[in-house]
Amino acid sequence: MKILVINGVNLNLTGRREKHVYGGESLAEINGELSAFARSEGHEADFFQSNLEGEICTAVQNAEGVYDGIVLNAGAYSHYSYAIRDAIASVSVPVVEVHMSNVFAREGFRHTSVLTEVCKGEILGFGKQSYFLALESFWR
Amino acid sequence: MKILVINGVNLNLTGRREKHVYGGESLAEINGELSAFARSEGHEADFFQSNLEGEICTAVQNAEGVYDGIVLNAGAYSHYSYAIRDAIASVSVPVVEVHMSNVFAREGFRHTSVLTEVCKGEILGFGKQSYFLALESFWR
Amino acid sequence: MKILVINGVNLNLTGRREKHVYGGESLAEINGELSAFARSEGHEADFFQSNLEGEICTAVQNAEGVYDGIVLNAGAYSHYSYAIRDAIASVSVPVVEVHMSNVFAREGFRHTSVLTEVCKGEILGFGKQSYFLALESFWR
Amino acid sequence: MKILVINGVNLNLTGRREKHVYGGESLAEINGELSAFARSEGHEADFFQSNLEGEICTAVQNAEGVYDGIVLNAGAYSHYSYAIRDAIASVSVPVVEVHMSNVFAREGFRHTSVLTEVCKGEILGFGKQSYFLALESFWR
Amino acid sequence: MKILVINGVNLNLTGRREKHVYGGESLAEINGELSAFARSEGHEADFFQSNLEGEICTAVQNAEGVYDGIVLNAGAYSHYSYAIRDAIASVSVPVVEVHMSNVFAREGFRHTSVLTEVCKGEILGFGKQSYFLALESFWR
Amino acid sequence: MKILVINGVNLNLTGRREKHVYGGESLAEINGELSAFARSEGHEADFFQSNLEGEICTAVQNAEGVYDGIVLNAGAYSHYSYAIRDAIASVSVPVVEVHMSNVFAREGFRHTSVLTEVCKGEILGFGKQSYFLALESFWR
Amino acid sequence: MKILVINGVNLNLTGRREKHVYGGESLAEINGELSAFARSEGHEADFFQSNLEGEICTAVQNAEGVYDGIVLNAGAYSHYSYAIRDAIASVSVPVVEVHMSNVFAREGFRHTSVLTEVCKGEILGFGKQSYFLALESFWR
Amino acid sequence: MKILVINGVNLNLTGRREKHVYGGESLAEINGELSAFARSEGHEADFFQSNLEGEICTAVQNAEGVYDGIVLNAGAYSHYSYAIRDAIASVSVPVVEVHMSNVFAREGFRHTSVLTEVCKGEILGFGKQSYFLALESFWR
Amino acid sequence: MKILVINGVNLNLTGRREKHVYGGESLAEINGELSAFARSEGHEADFFQSNLEGEICTAVQNAEGVYDGIVLNAGAYSHYSYAIRDAIASVSVPVVEVHMSNVFAREGFRHTSVLTEVCKGEILGFGKQSYFLALESFWR
Amino acid sequence: MKILVINGVNLNLTGRREKHVYGGESLAEINGELSAFARSEGHEADFFQSNLEGEICTAVQNAEGVYDGIVLNAGAYSHYSYAIRDAIASVSVPVVEVHMSNVFAREGFRHTSVLTEVCKGEILGFGKQSYFLALESFWR
Amino acid sequence: MKILVINGVNLNLTGRREKHVYGGESLAEINGELSAFARSEGHEADFFQSNLEGEICTAVQNAEGVYDGIVLNAGAYSHYSYAIRDAIASVSVPVVEVHMSNVFAREGFRHTSVLTEVCKGEILGFGKQSYFLALESFWR
Amino acid sequence: MKILVINGVNLNLTGRREKHVYGGESLAEINGELSAFARSEGHEADFFQSNLEGEICTAVQNAEGVYDGIVLNAGAYSHYSYAIRDAIASVSVPVVEVHMSNVFAREGFRHTSVLTEVCKGEILGFGKQSYFLALESFWR
Repeated sequence: MKILVINGVNLNLTGRREKHVYGGESLAEINGELSAFARSEGHEADFFQSNLEGEICTAVQNAEGVYDGIVLNAGAYSHYSYAIRDAIASVSVPVVEVHMSNVFAREGFRHTSVLTEVCKGEILGFGKQSYFLALESFWR
Repeated sequence: MKILVINGVNLNLTGRREKHVYGGESLAEINGELSAFARSEGHEADFFQSNLEGEICTAVQNAEGVYDGIVLNAGAYSHYSYAIRDAIASVSVPVVEVHMSNVFAREGFRHTSVLTEVCKGEILGFGKQSYFLALESFWR
Repeated sequence: MKILVINGVNLNLTGRREKHVYGGESLAEINGELSAFARSEGHEADFFQSNLEGEICTAVQNAEGVYDGIVLNAGAYSHYSYAIRDAIASVSVPVVEVHMSNVFAREGFRHTSVLTEVCKGEILGFGKQSYFLALESFWR
Repeated sequence: MKILVINGVNLNLTGRREKHVYGGESLAEINGELSAFARSEGHEADFFQSNLEGEICTAVQNAEGVYDGIVLNAGAYSHYSYAIRDAIASVSVPVVEVHMSNVFAREGFRHTSVLTEVCKGEILGFGKQSYFLALESFWR
Repeated sequence: MKILVINGVNLNLTGRREKHVYGGESLAEINGELSAFARSEGHEADFFQSNLEGEICTAVQNAEGVYDGIVLNAGAYSHYSYAIRDAIASVSVPVVEVHMSNVFAREGFRHTSVLTEVCKGEILGFGKQSYFLALESFWR
Repeated sequence: MKILVINGVNLNLTGRREKHVYGGESLAEINGELSAFARSEGHEADFFQSNLEGEICTAVQNAEGVYDGIVLNAGAYSHYSYAIRDAIASVSVPVVEVHMSNVFAREGFRHTSVLTEVCKGEILGFGKQSYFLALESFWR
Repeated sequence: MKILVINGVNLNLTGRREKHVYGGESLAEINGELSAFARSEGHEADFFQSNLEGEICTAVQNAEGVYDGIVLNAGAYSHYSYAIRDAIASVSVPVVEVHMSNVFAREGFRHTSVLTEVCKGEILGFGKQSYFLALESFWR
Repeated sequence: MKILVINGVNLNLTGRREKHVYGGESLAEINGELSAFARSEGHEADFFQSNLEGEICTAVQNAEGVYDGIVLNAGAYSHYSYAIRDAIASVSVPVVEVHMSNVFAREGFRHTSVLTEVCKGEILGFGKQSYFLALESFWR
Repeated sequence: MKILVINGVNLNLTGRREKHVYGGESLAEINGELSAFARSEGHEADFFQSNLEGEICTAVQNAEGVYDGIVLNAGAYSHYSYAIRDAIASVSVPVVEVHMSNVFAREGFRHTSVLTEVCKGEILGFGKQSYFLALESFWR
Repeated sequence: MKILVINGVNLNLTGRREKHVYGGESLAEINGELSAFARSEGHEADFFQSNLEGEICTAVQNAEGVYDGIVLNAGAYSHYSYAIRDAIASVSVPVVEVHMSNVFAREGFRHTSVLTEVCKGEILGFGKQSYFLALESFWR
Repeated sequence: MKILVINGVNLNLTGRREKHVYGGESLAEINGELSAFARSEGHEADFFQSNLEGEICTAVQNAEGVYDGIVLNAGAYSHYSYAIRDAIASVSVPVVEVHMSNVFAREGFRHTSVLTEVCKGEILGFGKQSYFLALESFWR
Repeated sequence: MKILVINGVNLNLTGRREKHVYGGESLAEINGELSAFARSEGHEADFFQSNLEGEICTAVQNAEGVYDGIVLNAGAYSHYSYAIRDAIASVSVPVVEVHMSNVFAREGFRHTSVLTEVCKGEILGFGKQSYFLALESFWR
């Protein structure tokens, strides 16, 4: 299987900001581990990050026919981007929403995700392990 | 008259996604027909599409002094983009909001448009004909 | 095609009240122009106006099997008449909702229409041209 | 006992609209069966239908001193007619509210009845049997 | 001055229903006293009552150019009739809203009047004296 | 037909508490009369009461394949037990919700039932007669 | 009769602020006219003004057994002073609430009065005439 | 590691109800597979199911000092049981919330979980795989 | 006097969980002190604890005619158990609601108690002293 | 210990208003009993009452360093005075909020206290005994 | 220029309470520095503080014609005093609202200021520097 | 000190749109004056403007370690961009939010800023002077 891992706004800072929440590894390091993990299980993982809402929409659109699944951590856009929601709904590729932190134990605005309804499932609260579990959910 | 037709996020997929809602014609095909229709009535129509909220703002800004009217289908941004709303309010070009589907017969979040208040009018629910009626509203 | 144009409560005052909103032509004058326009396009338009919510329901009911479409400006009843909504839902004739003014740029109570969900489409904000565009939407 | 069965707006279409919800019998047929049922139990049932909110108020008012009970299906007016509510509250005749469909399994606006608080009881969801049970509630 | 006193839905029952709230005099008796009072002050009062929302709208519309003021007790319609509100807003005759009871000391739905904003003033809670004070407000 | 009558929390006190609301007969007496009534009509009624939300769920579950219908008065659990709601939704036995009192004429929290949407119908306000009408609704 | 006219916060500025709303006469001038009017009708009017919420409470308390009625314009305190509300509820003197302006045609916060429920009645929108009508309501 | 898998109300029906949502395997079968999976990874899984809210609280309480983690699918109790929430908060054993279905794509009441805030993480939407991923989250 | 002290869900953990909130004494120890205190004042205190909502209802029901008062700390059930509320309302024994912590200084869901309205009084925030004060409130 | 008992707005009327709620003793009489009770237990109680919100703030401020505790019945100010709340939060003296009546069994606006969150505890519903229990809470 | 600096309720405690929020300088010390700063820039600053809402209204009223500007920190009154709001709106002196703390980073009730809408501008979050910046805003 | 002044969406139109709100100077002119002012005080100001939400996030991110402070006018994004909020929260550079207009005196949607909570302070309503005061707040 070929999976696209999309990280949204401010996730390029992973490992540099709020380390008690997100851990001290950079996004590149986490992506490296995810890639190795996928390969070790006989699959393939690609990666995309953008701070721009519209580019995330385009990335989701372009996954159609190319990837077997998307792992999506949209960052703060999760809470209000009906644009990304529509992009997800417009492709047939299944999308798994992930969050590193337990968003329901943080500020109120993080308790709403406008994306979940159109995703296949959601995994949250396990730090970087959220990504590993999401990848694995595709081929278990 | 010279009219700018702006399509927002995910509308580049028209004809490919949710065909029962949006019909099977591509955006390029619809734009072609709109262009022909405008010319046949002695007017001119230009076209712009972007998935990026900020680029739509810029397109609206740049229409000032160039176009006599804007036909705008902002897609999902219609429901929360106060940025686009401010762009509309900052130009003197009249804007007609259109939607191909009857947004009030769909999910709750589509029942709110933050744009309509600063537009001249709104036309929704007629599929691609919504665009034709919007164009015509400028020169009837 | 045979279209019924229904005007609801207080629209009998068109041309006499709030002329800056509704223009200076009487409802009879507008209806005359609409009739001529329909005939000129090879169609037929009939007209009905009432201040009584229940009579509007009956008019919608009776259109079944007689008309190919209804153009409906229910006036203030648009904002709370679930009775008219049910009447629309109970007939197979497609209904296009129109408003002369941009209701979303006026008082808050005008931002809700309980009718739109069961209509085919909606056209608002173009003054008397809203009616012309609505008629045209049936035969374009 | 002498019972008045009042049907409100759009219920004159029973048997013609949304048959999967309301069944295929006309209101006249149902009323005929109800009349026969009442007589067979030694009682009497009269019938009134109107699409006009105000006429329903008048019918309720006029039942005072004439009828021993009212069976009322106000249709969509159930959801917002404080006028009918006040009419019910102003007479001493007990009123039983009925609905053929399970209104709580339909659209959100049907989940509120402004009438129930001033009625004796409510029966809903049993199709035309709702009327029979309501009649029977008066003389069991 | 020539004043029109309009009473709305269920007010034809005044003196017969809820006497502890509305007193024991009939509407005709109250109107007789109001008429005598107006004449004694050198003015004239006419009277209209209807249970039909639309007829109240028409009565308000027709007062234009005929009456110098309207005293309006719309009954339960006060709480939701945007139709009557629009009728008031469409005439230049000043309208004084009255209620016999203190509506703010009763059920919650009576705490909202959609009419007051477009009326000149409001008088409530004084029983039948509310009408006398309202009449007097025009010529003091 | 074989019908199961389920009474929920605090209904074991019927006849002892708030007699002006629930009457003076005990639940056992009412059940006795219901049983006799069912037999007299050629049917059978069984009875279950529990104060425990989870036991009511289990009783509903176990009715599958055993009973032709359930008459359910869940007491206060009606207003918030999504557990009982799910139990009802998970069986194919039709459930009729009953209340002895007119819950819509009592405290605000009683105006919401989370059960009705998944029931066949609802009967409320007739005292112990609510149960008789509910039974009868299955075989009329 | 002996009536106390209480004016609340900022009403000492009457005649100096927002003259288009409150007119150009000072509070002393209006009070003078009210006093003359009361005397001319064989009654007596006293006057109290304070910007302090607690002093208004005390004034209401002290009216018990001294005055036959209170005319109260609490100014902005009308919208949130449960303290004044409790003071009114704790005396047996009837209180008539007045407002010079039509508060329901102004900002949203002025649409709520926490006082009206415990007053005898309310008169609003007639400028200084609101006070005259309120005085008169006691002895008509 | 020793993990306790707790299933709440109505989950004893898994495999029998709504198979399109929950699949056709019974809870016993799923538990068997989970047990085997845990053992194959060198861990141990125990199982508990109850329809009773209070028993689920007790089970969570008793896990303290006995288990290294809890996998909890509380069923409908997830949406309102502050009792279970308090039980989770009172133990130091980490709890992972799971749902087989994508609760955010179902009825509105399922969009709120009062438990998530005090859990370590949440996994939802993967059918029975949600349990496997939750188990694995403890020892990855 | 004979008083029943009822502790609800999770209060069996007192002294073991969140000691900074609830103190380090076990429920048995507190109950022992309360019993001694009651006896020293010439009264008697009995004790009941359950995690099951329905059992708490039954305990309240059974207090009728046996106890002169109930001291009730329902734990988390305080915030949503209309079942316990109805049980309290159905007995004539006065109930005093207690909380050890200041619930209004904790999470939002703890700010609502559905029980207080039908209790005699409430004491909260004094740790185990809340129980002593509640006992004493019966015989002071 | 030295305790300051503060009574807020309208509580100077205790014993004169709403005796069924507050009893027939005057505030002076109650204060006398409280003083005697404190002395009998080896403590001291002082008393302050004001109808002015700001003076209550000042009294709370001035208690710093002088009193060991405050018993506060702020009357209606409890429901909206963030000023008093800030005064409480700004001193280190513990404050116990009391109400004579069960505020949760009265009007809706009395169900909110903006003070409780910053108080040590709250005692309500025991008539004048609420004060005795509050005093005692300081030295038990 | 002559500027009046008004401090509201509890701000007399500045330097004594919550020093981590408000700093350790007393209000007198801050006022001294502000006075010196104004003089050094060729202007004049006067000072007023009160815990009484009504006295703040009076101070604002009296500034008319005397001061060129007001710097206002109303403390907790900012969040609900429509009385102070009306006082501000009734004078032509421009008012700048200041807060030492970032009120939007504190409790929810501090996120609403009913004053800002009628002020010229607002400065918040800079500790005592908020006052200096506000003074300077008048003469920059 | 080195300060970055960031202007968001539509602020590139400053001086061209709504001049009565924003003044007639262009953003370049204002930036020029700000730069000169900073230099004259011995500091340095840089400038960035973008219509793209994501680019503003990136600009904030990149300020880390380069600038001593950020002056941010995010335009319409202030009201809903949790993405920019997260960017601010992820850097240690203090951010001062500014608005030229008094946003609380304009449309309702402008009354909410999702950014303020994570900023150091906010200055609004002073036209271009808002920027000068914000700059100065860093080095006063």
